[in-house]
Amino acid sequence: MAYSMTIEWGDCDSAGMVFYPNYFRWFDSAFQHLLREKNLDQRSLSKRYGIVGTPIADVSARFLCPATFGDAITIDSHISEWMPKLFKVSHVVHRVGQTIAEGHELRFWGISDDTLGTLRAGVIDKEFKTLMAG
Amino acid sequence: MAYSMTIEWGDCDSAGMVFYPNYFRWFDSAFQHLLREKNLDQRSLSKRYGIVGTPIADVSARFLCPATFGDAITIDSHISEWMPKLFKVSHVVHRVGQTIAEGHELRFWGISDDTLGTLRAGVIDKEFKTLMAG
Amino acid sequence: MAYSMTIEWGDCDSAGMVFYPNYFRWFDSAFQHLLREKNLDQRSLSKRYGIVGTPIADVSARFLCPATFGDAITIDSHISEWMPKLFKVSHVVHRVGQTIAEGHELRFWGISDDTLGTLRAGVIDKEFKTLMAG
Amino acid sequence: MAYSMTIEWGDCDSAGMVFYPNYFRWFDSAFQHLLREKNLDQRSLSKRYGIVGTPIADVSARFLCPATFGDAITIDSHISEWMPKLFKVSHVVHRVGQTIAEGHELRFWGISDDTLGTLRAGVIDKEFKTLMAG
Repeated sequence: MAYSMTIEWGDCDSAGMVFYPNYFRWFDSAFQHLLREKNLDQRSLSKRYGIVGTPIADVSARFLCPATFGDAITIDSHISEWMPKLFKVSHVVHRVGQTIAEGHELRFWGISDDTLGTLRAGVIDKEFKTLMAG
Repeated sequence: MAYSMTIEWGDCDSAGMVFYPNYFRWFDSAFQHLLREKNLDQRSLSKRYGIVGTPIADVSARFLCPATFGDAITIDSHISEWMPKLFKVSHVVHRVGQTIAEGHELRFWGISDDTLGTLRAGVIDKEFKTLMAG
Repeated sequence: MAYSMTIEWGDCDSAGMVFYPNYFRWFDSAFQHLLREKNLDQRSLSKRYGIVGTPIADVSARFLCPATFGDAITIDSHISEWMPKLFKVSHVVHRVGQTIAEGHELRFWGISDDTLGTLRAGVIDKEFKTLMAG
Repeated sequence: MAYSMTIEWGDCDSAGMVFYPNYFRWFDSAFQHLLREKNLDQRSLSKRYGIVGTPIADVSARFLCPATFGDAITIDSHISEWMPKLFKVSHVVHRVGQTIAEGHELRFWGISDDTLGTLRAGVIDKEFKTLMAG
């Protein structure tokens, strides 16, 4: 799936380049677009599977060249690995002819332990895997 | 260095937990506080050493338990590794008695190549290392 | 109530000044601190009064002089007006010896109409007024 | 000019609705798109006219109904008033068949007074007005 956007003035810092936490905001958006392509979203996941969401276990990014406001970028995202309770989303950020960043989100199937603030990883529903692979 | 703050309502997502890109915003703030402790900041670094800044080469984080608005957190940060052109900043995020996240930023000594959008890593000024170690 | 903070690198835009939407993020935080001073927060408001929250009906700000990263600011906030279903929160942002911004949030007592996306203003609970005035 | 976008998961707060400062982020983006439509941006404004930017003097918004992630919105923006040193940008945010928010940004022609942190309003360049009206 490719999610396209323009980098905005407010996304950049005083050095005129993207303030890097925004890349993770865009990774998250790109993942939500992946879900939406399959007619899913966090709301329907909660309803269908009773999960709190798909929280992040770990995340990383490498930045290959700076980007600035006005740049049109595309994020290519796909689920690159399935584990019983976790799945890995890989992201590559392109600007015409160039890779500017790449990274991953390791997400888990978030089950609430009722008490606020406790959350555990449950076994990912088979149907979800099938839908995402379809 | 320990940087303390309260997680705010606006830092959390619809699941009531921190929207994860905010952790990187806090990592960056914690690094700026590290500089400030030594009477430095991005402005003085630019003036003193002619660099554009200390952009990120790569970054990662692991999230160990969810946090929510109202939580008081402390981020312990230090420069954990020096390379000729890069340095690693390590961050650990605590809430009373608990580690909730940890991560690193690999930053480089950013030299402008004049043309907008090009940036290369230069050799880190010795004085900077001495100041930060002091 | 006075809420104090330091403006961070990531709060500023390419002109080196605060990217203005952040002031509203800080207004919201200052309001949450007002609640916390009275041992309240959005969680306890929901539990006690069955409201969804205190959403904004309208909001404004005037910016008197630019601020940048490293600036220590204080936000003085108070509830300046009570209406049956709405209340007004006034904010003044100071930097040593200077007012740099001021604004207001008009908030309402948010009652859910069950269907997602509909929300109406209810009559503010008397106890809440008393607690906030105390 | 109409600027279209989808509200993202990370734009919403724990009540599942847009965290309101994001509307101002989108107002700013909508203004930058207005510039881009005329082949201008903050970079070219600085180069052509020697200004620091078009900072905000005051800003306001009214929120008419809540919006949530997944909502497709359109922001209609235009310059609604010209003064010698300031101009007003008006924004209306729509979701299919509904106005969900409206507001304005009063921007000034930002001239640097050299010393960091001082900024004054200059007389808006005639050419800029002509370009924006064209």
